[in-house]
Amino acid sequence: MVTLKDKKVLVVGGAGFIGRHVVRQLLSDGAQVAVLDVTRLPDDLSRVDQVTGSITDTALFASTVSGCDTVVFLANSSLPGSANTDLSSEIHDHVQTTIKAAEISNAQGVKRFVFASSGGTVYGYSSDQPLAEDMPTAPINAYGVSKLSIEHYLRLLSRLRPMQTVSLRVSNPYGEGQLALRNQGFVAAAMQHAISGKTMPIWGDGSVERDFIHVSDVAAGFAAACAAGEVPPVVNIGSGQALSLLDLLKMIEPALGRPVPVQFEPGRAIDVARNVLDISRARQALGWSPRISMAEGLSRTARWWLDREAAGRSQ
Amino acid sequence: MVTLKDKKVLVVGGAGFIGRHVVRQLLSDGAQVAVLDVTRLPDDLSRVDQVTGSITDTALFASTVSGCDTVVFLANSSLPGSANTDLSSEIHDHVQTTIKAAEISNAQGVKRFVFASSGGTVYGYSSDQPLAEDMPTAPINAYGVSKLSIEHYLRLLSRLRPMQTVSLRVSNPYGEGQLALRNQGFVAAAMQHAISGKTMPIWGDGSVERDFIHVSDVAAGFAAACAAGEVPPVVNIGSGQALSLLDLLKMIEPALGRPVPVQFEPGRAIDVARNVLDISRARQALGWSPRISMAEGLSRTARWWLDREAAGRSQ
Repeated sequence: MVTLKDKKVLVVGGAGFIGRHVVRQLLSDGAQVAVLDVTRLPDDLSRVDQVTGSITDTALFASTVSGCDTVVFLANSSLPGSANTDLSSEIHDHVQTTIKAAEISNAQGVKRFVFASSGGTVYGYSSDQPLAEDMPTAPINAYGVSKLSIEHYLRLLSRLRPMQTVSLRVSNPYGEGQLALRNQGFVAAAMQHAISGKTMPIWGDGSVERDFIHVSDVAAGFAAACAAGEVPPVVNIGSGQALSLLDLLKMIEPALGRPVPVQFEPGRAIDVARNVLDISRARQALGWSPRISMAEGLSRTARWWLDREAAGRSQ
Repeated sequence: MVTLKDKKVLVVGGAGFIGRHVVRQLLSDGAQVAVLDVTRLPDDLSRVDQVTGSITDTALFASTVSGCDTVVFLANSSLPGSANTDLSSEIHDHVQTTIKAAEISNAQGVKRFVFASSGGTVYGYSSDQPLAEDMPTAPINAYGVSKLSIEHYLRLLSRLRPMQTVSLRVSNPYGEGQLALRNQGFVAAAMQHAISGKTMPIWGDGSVERDFIHVSDVAAGFAAACAAGEVPPVVNIGSGQALSLLDLLKMIEPALGRPVPVQFEPGRAIDVARNVLDISRARQALGWSPRISMAEGLSRTARWWLDREAAGRSQ
């Protein structure tokens, strides 16, 4: 049982999809929670200490983080697809901004910095599966290279300064609150297409395998990383299970009670064939395990989409 | 036999210690050579097309690189020791600046970008020796993290754009022209202390082992990386031989004909016990091998220092 009483945690990017779930988990574990985000929290989270603004405003960040002992860093200005076109801006916006925030956190007395890395991109192509943290890393997009670079600078920071850092390499999260925007989130995209009746493109033959994890398990992983006595520099957070897109579609349709109209398109070079995480380290070092089965997670997610449809919201 | 006839190579940082040797090697291999550096080339290199300025001046860089087919990138604004204190500035000055230069090079039609990485820092602690390119990388200083981050962005660039990139992980270079400035270069420091009669501090007991390589072999490695038909993204350039500091001192003293007065200081956490590179890939992929023995290299270096002393220059 994770307890975070007496902890004051700043969640940067707390109003996003993963962020809201993390905030709710931290609150239920007893933490005092503050949020910094460019957008507002939903009404049910109004008791959270909320600051609206950007992490690029370093003075605002310094004053917001002051008095917190832990930072959960979920802010991210780049996306897997678009970061490739201007690498030097990506380095500035993503790597430099994140490490500046970590340095300010340390200067303000923060004792632990928990960073959301990407289990789906840092490893790149690898025939060795499941992927363990010490395996070679060779990301094939800028988003993954930036995440990996940040991991290395954070590992270094925890050697140089009195602040522990941990990067959680999250696999493919899905769940309530995830919108099918900007090509992120296969489950969200499938449900949204099923409800709208529009045809969903699938690149390749649907045989690629991914490690899908329900967002509430991800949130529990972040809470565990805040609570653990010691943390390793890098920890995988995933289900540890491979699931092909085709098999996933076969589970989504009954969960939602609707067919997902799909059209197969030529495969993309950016899609690795298989990406499944070894989660032994998370079990041992954080005392964390995924608890939501795929069926249960999809059922919850489907209910959220159907409620949304009933309320007349199309996206 | 490397031939670079019909190649136009821009050497960024060509006026530095390694840069001058690279420029001479490229000229002797028949290349047309341009240099961009903040300092001037020595008089014997006056036939080189020389531009004085900084790589942070992107307009100047773009006009200088225009018309070149190859870039050798040796510029480096950071140093192993000092980069740790302000990581976000280090990211800007080192990683972003280098990748910006690579992106401009690609936009100007450059076909190959050869980057000087660091075999002495990217691997970090490793009991597996000699170090091969595919082994895990966990640098323990900011200089090494930046070099590794740049390597990953360059590897990505060569996937995304029609420009090949190769990062040469150079071990510990020494030789004529290396000054004992800013704590860089054990051989230079030892010779400089022997000549001045000042006591040289050695951190630890002198048992740490390094891979020392004569700078003319390093220069030949860069020329080979310019000339090769295809290049792997990362290649070690070293002697492949381990040499302890104590054993190296025993070779330096007879080469110079002077004793090196030393004083042993407590060991530093930043010094890994052993760092020796596996150079099989360089032999196979670049057709390159080190050719200068340690005795020969130290003899040449000693002669340079003694000539300098005879000319009345103290540093």
